Amino acid sequence: MTVIQQAAVIGAGVIGAGWVARLIENGIPVQVYDPAPDADAKLSAVLSNSRYAYAQLSNAPRCTEAPLTISNDLAAAVSDVDLIVEAVPERLDLKQAVYAQIEQAARPEALIASSTSGILPTALQAQMQHPERLLVAHPFNPVYLLPLVELVGGEQTSSASLERAADFYRSIGMHPLLIKKEIEAFVADRLLEAVWRESLWLVSDGIATTQDVDDAIRYGFGLRWAQMGLFETYRIAGGEAGMRHFMAQFGTCLSWPWTKLMDVPEFNDQLVDLVAEQSDAQSGQYSIRELERIRDKNLIAILQALKANGWGAGHTLASYEQARFAAAATEAQALDDSRPLCVLERSVPSAWTDYNGHMNESRYLEASSEATDAFLRLVGVDADYVAAGGSYFTVETHIRHLDEIRAEEGLRVTVQVLAAAGKKLHLFNRLEHADGRLLATAEHLLLHVDLNTRRSCEPSAAVAEKLAAIVEAQAGLGVPEGAGRAI
Amino acid sequence: MTVIQQAAVIGAGVIGAGWVARLIENGIPVQVYDPAPDADAKLSAVLSNSRYAYAQLSNAPRCTEAPLTISNDLAAAVSDVDLIVEAVPERLDLKQAVYAQIEQAARPEALIASSTSGILPTALQAQMQHPERLLVAHPFNPVYLLPLVELVGGEQTSSASLERAADFYRSIGMHPLLIKKEIEAFVADRLLEAVWRESLWLVSDGIATTQDVDDAIRYGFGLRWAQMGLFETYRIAGGEAGMRHFMAQFGTCLSWPWTKLMDVPEFNDQLVDLVAEQSDAQSGQYSIRELERIRDKNLIAILQALKANGWGAGHTLASYEQARFAAAATEAQALDDSRPLCVLERSVPSAWTDYNGHMNESRYLEASSEATDAFLRLVGVDADYVAAGGSYFTVETHIRHLDEIRAEEGLRVTVQVLAAAGKKLHLFNRLEHADGRLLATAEHLLLHVDLNTRRSCEPSAAVAEKLAAIVEAQAGLGVPEGAGRAI
Repeated sequence: MTVIQQAAVIGAGVIGAGWVARLIENGIPVQVYDPAPDADAKLSAVLSNSRYAYAQLSNAPRCTEAPLTISNDLAAAVSDVDLIVEAVPERLDLKQAVYAQIEQAARPEALIASSTSGILPTALQAQMQHPERLLVAHPFNPVYLLPLVELVGGEQTSSASLERAADFYRSIGMHPLLIKKEIEAFVADRLLEAVWRESLWLVSDGIATTQDVDDAIRYGFGLRWAQMGLFETYRIAGGEAGMRHFMAQFGTCLSWPWTKLMDVPEFNDQLVDLVAEQSDAQSGQYSIRELERIRDKNLIAILQALKANGWGAGHTLASYEQARFAAAATEAQALDDSRPLCVLERSVPSAWTDYNGHMNESRYLEASSEATDAFLRLVGVDADYVAAGGSYFTVETHIRHLDEIRAEEGLRVTVQVLAAAGKKLHLFNRLEHADGRLLATAEHLLLHVDLNTRRSCEPSAAVAEKLAAIVEAQAGLGVPEGAGRAI
Repeated sequence: MTVIQQAAVIGAGVIGAGWVARLIENGIPVQVYDPAPDADAKLSAVLSNSRYAYAQLSNAPRCTEAPLTISNDLAAAVSDVDLIVEAVPERLDLKQAVYAQIEQAARPEALIASSTSGILPTALQAQMQHPERLLVAHPFNPVYLLPLVELVGGEQTSSASLERAADFYRSIGMHPLLIKKEIEAFVADRLLEAVWRESLWLVSDGIATTQDVDDAIRYGFGLRWAQMGLFETYRIAGGEAGMRHFMAQFGTCLSWPWTKLMDVPEFNDQLVDLVAEQSDAQSGQYSIRELERIRDKNLIAILQALKANGWGAGHTLASYEQARFAAAATEAQALDDSRPLCVLERSVPSAWTDYNGHMNESRYLEASSEATDAFLRLVGVDADYVAAGGSYFTVETHIRHLDEIRAEEGLRVTVQVLAAAGKKLHLFNRLEHADGRLLATAEHLLLHVDLNTRRSCEPSAAVAEKLAAIVEAQAGLGVPEGAGRAI
């Protein structure tokens, strides 16, 4: 089988255009055919989104974007390609008519992959000349970012076609999931359809608004489902006794009116055995404690990621942190100004470590920068001060890495003020391991700025006064070893 | 109403213990009552997880952990507290008996919050002396990390109790969701129950294994649901025509066999109007394009967060990046060694910016560090070399911040080798804006190390040779302005 080097996409709605985006971002030239008058506009909108997304997605270098050709002729679009993506509306007769046109022009070995959300591949391929090359490859919006693609073969689909497709989708950054038996709507959309139906009941009966339903998802189980699914999550809830215990505990709920959807499978020993054995095969290599730690590390990373975007559960965390910062500023009255001020204490998250098995160098600066921010809040450069247009920008930094720290170990940062005069603030931060080892020193020169003009200016009198008091209190500390050094 | 300063938790299973953890981490002293013989062990396991999680969760300072008292006497546990959390097994008679005991000992104004997943509060409070202070506060596992708590009042619950509870849960970092009408299983668990029932059908019918169901969630819609729910996601899918268009397109599916759960609400204009109007109220302040960008920024941040933990969809992204790095190393043969080598080009993600409205200082080092890694791969320090025990550690860094860059603007990093002799490698990286402005210089001193002994040693001959060739080729560049500087 030839490697897939050229593709055609038939139908450029949200899903077809999403496929075009993922393909050309991965260096696969694409021919597009869509007779709709607004097809160009829709395609451009999606490509604008995908270019925006890929530019930000990763530090890895992007592929050179492959050429895109918009064709007025279906036959010409498909004649030279190795893969034909069908993304036309969800009508069996329409799709079959498109396959007939495709087969008249395409190479007999070209794969034909339908994006259908629910029609059975056996029905799709029923009238084809070369039905063995037809499969369903069902993606999820936005196609250019979400990795899942469900692969479903019909009665006549060859295993070679499914393998070829799986290899290809993997090569363009996707996670192919081979569905074992064809069924309407496959797997993911069946789950989504169940939630959709239950949600419409909730809204229709006035129990919840659309916003309530969304919030019930994104502040709760949606966070769990970004990293583990239903069964692995429930395996944890079952505790060390595992999935069998969970099933025993919640099996009876199946007969309760906990959803409007009451047509349930029979709950018997056979079903419990089946689920418990599959769950062991899936997750049995981890103890429940290990799964809990994995889950919690992922949740923390997701919450922090959303916090940086100020969105959803990340917004909740940001509000919480603001309250903690405010409380800490009050507690800090008790700090001894004549010593380096300990303004940050935490443990190192797993996500802060790198391929060398220790905290990545950039996290040293992140921790030092967070300590600088905490120190600035102490002297009055808080959210209100920034909102009024004043802040400090770091203009120069010198870090000496003296020792290593690993995931989950304790880290603290102290701040010593070397000088604070006019616009300039000169800090010497020390990163220390909880066991007392000095991990790094970070020397920073900051300038006070006007956030509107982006130019340097004097800080407020109140800030200058607090800084001067700390400089005086810390004068006895002297100039630390390592300050003022060059490489 | 007094502020909630003391709490009791009755029942220390996974949920009760999760409440204990969240409460004491937020400085609220807790009395625990659970007569089960293994209650202490279960509680300790959960507290060990929550301490681990809170140590890593945030750069904000933690509260001082409040004291925890384990009591053998329910009456003593509840007598002095402002909030009593009930987390005993899901049996109405048992819960009612517990409330009777509580009411004999507790202050009449103490809130009683049931953690029930599904029993109606009107039934729970039916036999109480002071039923106005009973409500359901339904949390999600792990309680100490997930923000959602569903608040549900019964017929006799006072609105003051609900408000007091909402304020309190907000103060301990949660997102209270007030459910408008009581219904069995409330909102989130009804959605979960629908998915659970459909999933059991899929497993029972041999369509999918438990692993397949989980993968169909966590590589696809689970990522969407960590940040937007069902309706806001579908509003986007409807395009500029919005929710009404989406409903018109997918309304007919309700009668299709796309789940086994066929007991559906009637699809009529009234339902469409209701959903469309609520969706406008929820998301109408954003255009579809804006929602798409918000969604994509969140997905990127979540994928990167999971990548750092090597898990799920993040693992897929990591594999993809490895392939891109390998391809880039081949393409780099064409780079001109006599110029500073451009090894990183990307745009700045929104999550990299800070309260000053520009890329945070620590991201300057992250970008420079990624460029150093890319350069090291070019000279042979790749994944295989690291697996064999060789690597470079940065020992000293000097950054000059010369200009600002904002979210979504283009960034590139070049590497100039100042020296490479024996164990030492001296790099001078330049961060440039896509418009040509020099944003920063980052000078790094690295030492080659043996990853087993963590001590410095000579690099391999092949690496030393490639480095020497680049040093020779770049010799004409001279020592750049800003190198060797001290603060």
